[in-house]
Amino acid sequence: MSHRFVVVGGDAAGMSAASKAKRENSDLDVVVFEKGEWVSYGACGLPYYVKGDVEELEDLVAVPPEAFREKRDIDLRTGHEVTAIDAEEKQVTVRANGETFTEPYDTLLVATGARAIEPPFDGMDLPGVFTLHSMESGERLREYLETEVLAGTATGGGSRGASDGDAAVAVIGGGYVGIEMAEAFAEHGLEVHLFEMLPHVLQPFGPEVADVVEEHLRDVGVNLHLDTRVEGFLGEGALEAVETESDAYEASLAVVGVGVAPNAELAAEAGAELGDSGAVAVDEYGRTSLSDVFSAGDCAEATHTVTQAPDFVPLALTANRAGRAIGQTVTGDPTPVGEIAGTATVKAFDLQAARTGILDEARARNHGFDPVNVTITASSRAHYYPGGSDIQVTLVGDRETGRVLGSSMVGEEGVPKRIDTVATALHGGMTVQELQNLDLAYAPPFSPTWDPVLTAAKVLGGKLED
Amino acid sequence: MSHRFVVVGGDAAGMSAASKAKRENSDLDVVVFEKGEWVSYGACGLPYYVKGDVEELEDLVAVPPEAFREKRDIDLRTGHEVTAIDAEEKQVTVRANGETFTEPYDTLLVATGARAIEPPFDGMDLPGVFTLHSMESGERLREYLETEVLAGTATGGGSRGASDGDAAVAVIGGGYVGIEMAEAFAEHGLEVHLFEMLPHVLQPFGPEVADVVEEHLRDVGVNLHLDTRVEGFLGEGALEAVETESDAYEASLAVVGVGVAPNAELAAEAGAELGDSGAVAVDEYGRTSLSDVFSAGDCAEATHTVTQAPDFVPLALTANRAGRAIGQTVTGDPTPVGEIAGTATVKAFDLQAARTGILDEARARNHGFDPVNVTITASSRAHYYPGGSDIQVTLVGDRETGRVLGSSMVGEEGVPKRIDTVATALHGGMTVQELQNLDLAYAPPFSPTWDPVLTAAKVLGGKLED
Repeated sequence: MSHRFVVVGGDAAGMSAASKAKRENSDLDVVVFEKGEWVSYGACGLPYYVKGDVEELEDLVAVPPEAFREKRDIDLRTGHEVTAIDAEEKQVTVRANGETFTEPYDTLLVATGARAIEPPFDGMDLPGVFTLHSMESGERLREYLETEVLAGTATGGGSRGASDGDAAVAVIGGGYVGIEMAEAFAEHGLEVHLFEMLPHVLQPFGPEVADVVEEHLRDVGVNLHLDTRVEGFLGEGALEAVETESDAYEASLAVVGVGVAPNAELAAEAGAELGDSGAVAVDEYGRTSLSDVFSAGDCAEATHTVTQAPDFVPLALTANRAGRAIGQTVTGDPTPVGEIAGTATVKAFDLQAARTGILDEARARNHGFDPVNVTITASSRAHYYPGGSDIQVTLVGDRETGRVLGSSMVGEEGVPKRIDTVATALHGGMTVQELQNLDLAYAPPFSPTWDPVLTAAKVLGGKLED
Repeated sequence: MSHRFVVVGGDAAGMSAASKAKRENSDLDVVVFEKGEWVSYGACGLPYYVKGDVEELEDLVAVPPEAFREKRDIDLRTGHEVTAIDAEEKQVTVRANGETFTEPYDTLLVATGARAIEPPFDGMDLPGVFTLHSMESGERLREYLETEVLAGTATGGGSRGASDGDAAVAVIGGGYVGIEMAEAFAEHGLEVHLFEMLPHVLQPFGPEVADVVEEHLRDVGVNLHLDTRVEGFLGEGALEAVETESDAYEASLAVVGVGVAPNAELAAEAGAELGDSGAVAVDEYGRTSLSDVFSAGDCAEATHTVTQAPDFVPLALTANRAGRAIGQTVTGDPTPVGEIAGTATVKAFDLQAARTGILDEARARNHGFDPVNVTITASSRAHYYPGGSDIQVTLVGDRETGRVLGSSMVGEEGVPKRIDTVATALHGGMTVQELQNLDLAYAPPFSPTWDPVLTAAKVLGGKLED
């Protein structure tokens, strides 16, 4: 009998693993159980679906289910929920169409993803209140937006329209999703209120980036409520207002985007160890503490390249890469899942923000570093070339070793891929001096002679020598 | 008496060295001799000055002479040509205002730059034939363009206008300058003929990039003459046509941009060793074979980070960086000038092209590598995000060690700073496997989940395993 590779969860990590395993060894018996109907989709695109940049929900699908089944010969079973793992007997319990049965495995991958955190707000279940993580939630949100919010505005003010004629909507949480949703709603001409409990939006990007993004959000008309705790949602039959500690704001739709939690319960109940983050602990090959059980994607931890400690940064590339590596390992070719640097980028209206590595001082100290940082501003193009704009770069290094620890950037152009230079330097364990001596690309339309990264490294280098 | 640091040449390397030395030690006596009148200018911007994107020649100056003299307390003497170095006596011979005198030095920096190569074409001295390297040549070219070429067109066809009413111009050489000049002339509505002796434009970028750029040049209406040797220029009193082996093409202006040669004679005549490239040989601190004589910028070699061998890639960042390092070394803090990766980028009308490292197979073999390469095409954005375009990535690795050797890219967006990821990997001596496992930035508007660099590394990784 052929080796049976069972995958729980049919998104980035799961489908990458299934595809890679089957491609490397077509004799493998590869089964994927996905509890929903959607597989291999880009949830990161949901804000752009709501915005209208992406027309159909199907457009977010990278590979349709039929292709996995027919072209890749994967036994993909949607509408199948795995409810238990028996790591002793090497079988999973599956529920589908009202029936429950068991299926054996030789190797198992738990790729159950993450879910949107639902804070205990009053009125979370009111119509008009959404989280945004699953394809289903994106579909419902856009439908509600079109039928209940925008339709009202178009006819001159529906029952839930703001008193001045512009319908108002609320975004709870100033992370990636919150800011992307603010942009999506603003594109529809809606009055947007963005509530953030912390003093700054985009917490992982640090205050230097947040200051710039916040000013821009205000410039484009977003009502920014920082340091503001939402208490609940008010409304008769549907959302009408968002209540904070001190006030209430009219809103006909609200998105709660306060983060995600790993779906680690299935693995935990089977006895797999969880890390401090609450996600499934894994080794460099994605192996859990259970024999022949792997985990990858938004439910699992990964190793941070700077700290060499486990971290939980549920992002798409990490999931894809780990899934692919595990798919290869399963075929007998042990392949590390790779380390992460916490690299991320986000579009915030006309701005681009990006970050990588360790920016937070307390966190750096926890890992034994003595962080020193600088923030510089440089042009995105040669000073004489038209159309350039400022890029602000924050760079953090370790005083003792001179090693680069992290960076953040914000500007109107040239940011997302510029952070990759620093991310690459982090993976290479480079010092600030080494970063400063990189031979980076220069041409007047694309960069000053000294790239902003190099300028930041020069300034930080000087500070580290003091 | 204070230490006397004398610099020959007042552009990127020279002024960077002078400024850094003086900043680090204000007691130093810093003297710069520049034979021309311009210092610290961005010659890379000349095509954009001709194009009209940059209005005044002065706009290309990074720091004006007065600022060096008054704010930085540097004894900057323009119109002063150093004609000889006596390394025994530690003095230079200077000619200025018709007089010749000697000046002593404790440390000398030779930063004499490069000059445009002038091929032995017939008619090189005809009015209307230009090279483009010095500020003076840029000024003369734009003036000739405006008064002799465009003025004629504007009035309905001057004496040198092409017969169909559009004035025609010629660009000899399909390197950076040639392509940037083709764009500049096309912007003015001129008929452009581009002549390249080799089978491809942009030779250092490799044929994969050249194919794409050539198709684009033709699409935007450039008359591309590849594999075509120019023999000379024809005209009575001024340029009227460009003659090739088999044909003649009307042209009222021609730019010859066939490369640059290092101004290494001054150092060579003083006894400094030159490298195989003909540029001044230097060690990791920029020291020549002469005691207390440094060299940097477009007249000097540099160490290639992949081959660890000397190379001659006269570009602006290398000059600035080496100058700055030498300025620091002179103050008693020995600072390596840094290695180069041959990283370069160029705008070619609506395309962006970039390269880094070793692309040429023969060159890789000369240095003991067994190069394997792949070329992939991937989108610049998530597949569902509007406005994306293809990026073609060529990646070269060494079969035995798996080390990344070089890369080229071409596309409409996202190219110039994406090459920096590979450049950084080259400096770090990374393998293709390590490149593939970098945690690079992803968000739908800026990249697919797998960045094109990662996709290329995945494919090359598979090929290296075969």
